[in-house]
Amino acid sequence: MKTKNKTTIIAEPGKQEVTIIREFEAPRALVFKAFKDPELLVQWLGPKDMILEIEKYDCRTGGAYRLMNCSGSGQKFNFNGVMHDVTEPERMIRTFEFEGLPERGHVSLEAATFTELPGNRTKLTIHCVFLSLADRDGMVQSGMEGGVVVSHQRLDELFEKMLVK
Amino acid sequence: MKTKNKTTIIAEPGKQEVTIIREFEAPRALVFKAFKDPELLVQWLGPKDMILEIEKYDCRTGGAYRLMNCSGSGQKFNFNGVMHDVTEPERMIRTFEFEGLPERGHVSLEAATFTELPGNRTKLTIHCVFLSLADRDGMVQSGMEGGVVVSHQRLDELFEKMLVK
Repeated sequence: MKTKNKTTIIAEPGKQEVTIIREFEAPRALVFKAFKDPELLVQWLGPKDMILEIEKYDCRTGGAYRLMNCSGSGQKFNFNGVMHDVTEPERMIRTFEFEGLPERGHVSLEAATFTELPGNRTKLTIHCVFLSLADRDGMVQSGMEGGVVVSHQRLDELFEKMLVK
Repeated sequence: MKTKNKTTIIAEPGKQEVTIIREFEAPRALVFKAFKDPELLVQWLGPKDMILEIEKYDCRTGGAYRLMNCSGSGQKFNFNGVMHDVTEPERMIRTFEFEGLPERGHVSLEAATFTELPGNRTKLTIHCVFLSLADRDGMVQSGMEGGVVVSHQRLDELFEKMLVK
């Protein structure tokens, strides 16, 4: 599938935040559902050659999650967090921690906003803040951009499949 | 009670974070307990002339909380969040949202570190990051400093009372 939509990732020098902006050819309720429903989540989150395993995904205000991206060679990339605010279909605010770092405590806060656009389209804005500039820079340098872009392309494919008449 | 310890609050211009540093004349396990145990929490968190009501305080990794500071005249200041990581006795990472703002979504992330000092003393470092500089500045201008300083003085009194032979 070819999409005209591109993922924009803004990480200004010296600021401990990252902003991710993306439009989708799908109505807001469906885009939100793709983030909330674990059966959809496994179809798009992470690289295509990895399997997303869900230990827990309680996507409600006050819930918690723990997910693993698993490669064919047995590598696992685990991450977890808690859901501060899940307000369907407009807002999801949660924490995020990648478990592969040498020490715990490098947590970020992610606020996702789902905005309706004309023509049954949706704009997604994810605002991430980090406990330090070093944490932010580490996340950016870890290849975050590639993972986000691929996940959004997989979302495009998922929506196209689901929206076929 | 007179204490020699002062609360240091660092809010550098242009940075969307606040760091709070304070030492206490109490062992780390007790300082941590004062943050974790709701029966102790109500004795120190917030202004002296207000009553802290606890709707929910599930202080475990993955738990959630909702607290109200209530004045004698019936004013209520409610706040809530989720506990990303509660690792006794060293670390507590949680979200925080004051409910009195015109709109929801102005959430911050707070990482508290409890460090042992010689002589059964403890250093508390709380690192707060905000989704925007405006959120950070709003929190600082709301009188956060006064509330934090008074709460820490009340903690001094609580520890003095509990540590009396």
